Amino acid sequence: MHSQRKYALALFFMLGLAAMAYAQSPEERLRELGIELPEASQPVANYVKFRQVGSLVYLAGHGPCSMGGLKYGKLGKDLTVEEGYQAARATGICLLSTLKMAIGDLGKVKQIVRVVGMVSSDPEFFDQPKVVNGCSDLLTEVFGEAGKHTRAAVGMAVLPNNIPVEITMIVELVN
Amino acid sequence: MHSQRKYALALFFMLGLAAMAYAQSPEERLRELGIELPEASQPVANYVKFRQVGSLVYLAGHGPCSMGGLKYGKLGKDLTVEEGYQAARATGICLLSTLKMAIGDLGKVKQIVRVVGMVSSDPEFFDQPKVVNGCSDLLTEVFGEAGKHTRAAVGMAVLPNNIPVEITMIVELVN
Amino acid sequence: MHSQRKYALALFFMLGLAAMAYAQSPEERLRELGIELPEASQPVANYVKFRQVGSLVYLAGHGPCSMGGLKYGKLGKDLTVEEGYQAARATGICLLSTLKMAIGDLGKVKQIVRVVGMVSSDPEFFDQPKVVNGCSDLLTEVFGEAGKHTRAAVGMAVLPNNIPVEITMIVELVN
Repeated sequence: MHSQRKYALALFFMLGLAAMAYAQSPEERLRELGIELPEASQPVANYVKFRQVGSLVYLAGHGPCSMGGLKYGKLGKDLTVEEGYQAARATGICLLSTLKMAIGDLGKVKQIVRVVGMVSSDPEFFDQPKVVNGCSDLLTEVFGEAGKHTRAAVGMAVLPNNIPVEITMIVELVN
Repeated sequence: MHSQRKYALALFFMLGLAAMAYAQSPEERLRELGIELPEASQPVANYVKFRQVGSLVYLAGHGPCSMGGLKYGKLGKDLTVEEGYQAARATGICLLSTLKMAIGDLGKVKQIVRVVGMVSSDPEFFDQPKVVNGCSDLLTEVFGEAGKHTRAAVGMAVLPNNIPVEITMIVELVN
Repeated sequence: MHSQRKYALALFFMLGLAAMAYAQSPEERLRELGIELPEASQPVANYVKFRQVGSLVYLAGHGPCSMGGLKYGKLGKDLTVEEGYQAARATGICLLSTLKMAIGDLGKVKQIVRVVGMVSSDPEFFDQPKVVNGCSDLLTEVFGEAGKHTRAAVGMAVLPNNIPVEITMIVELVN
């Protein structure tokens, strides 16, 4: 009996934690993850970083906002899978930074619809999904199930300025 | 006169066949084509195979569900155009398998909106369209005119796990 | 006083020009730019050049309609950045040609939503954005602010028929 009560208490405690996690806003999750969104930069050519169509927000192809601590080059040649993963995570942070600029409050996100993860790849590098996981994991940490998305993770011949990863995203907002 | 009657009969017969084909559901077409949709697999990472936004269904990048009888590698190096065509057709079958899981009945398809056919290519291989036709032809066989789609058929440096073809799709449903 | 009046006149004159430019329709801009849209070609395989979904128009991957004066091959190997820019501009003209066929009047464009600029690239060519600017600049010349779009500019291993540039586009129409 005593033991059963302990289990019950533990269960209530865990349910409470789960409920709190569930109730956290994306912005609270970001704080908890220790992520500060950088100032979104402005494009230098005749394009924009986002466009809204009804409840959909289209985000331009992003690389990491800052290459501080990240390597330029191709996966399978210049970067390890783990270095590529970190570059994809950094790219995800930039996408969220642009998204916040676009919609003001990340709590408006209903679901992440589409992520196209383009990985600059040596022709014999086959682990693009493990690299793009850096962005996919971040989105799931921040938005939970709503952060899961349809995805393509593919190998490009080369990317602008020799960045290792470029990612586009489409997001649906709550009405 | 006798000959004219024969022609008229043949014409009626052909019109009848055409009308039957027209009236067939996509699922009936699949059966007639001898295609059995495989069980849709679940993704292993933090992404999903489809997302619905209003009447649009976005499908993740798919390769062939099973490589049975198919070759890994790059077009222009490891696979012939015909082998690539078959890989794209197999990929189309997997996309339909996911689509059926997503919407239950393929008869709900209003039109196929977008197909992006990514072909792992040697830099001197120029026939990506002939490869992606494997998927485009399948979609047209199954859905008729509604199966025709806007398309890009392009050459990638490399694809995950060395698969030869990866395809994303966007589908509009009837309301 | 005399001088001030001259400045005022000049200012009014310039404001007038700006207002005229603003009031110009996209078709008038095209004429002023000396661009005549070519007849849109029909696809030879089981796909279409555009699909409309509600107020969105999806355009298939386009290359330059005619290679007259343009080079085949890869950036960083066969074409200079300027030659790539011209190929991207020619591709933009083809996209507008298909768009006009799709919607009849380019004045119906509310905004250009998405441009994916795929540049056939030597693995050591890093200036894809400068190439895709050829299309982005055209769209902005024709549609003004509404012509600015979310963009990806990336390096492909190779493109069909060895064309240097292929571009897909999504456009939102006014209701």
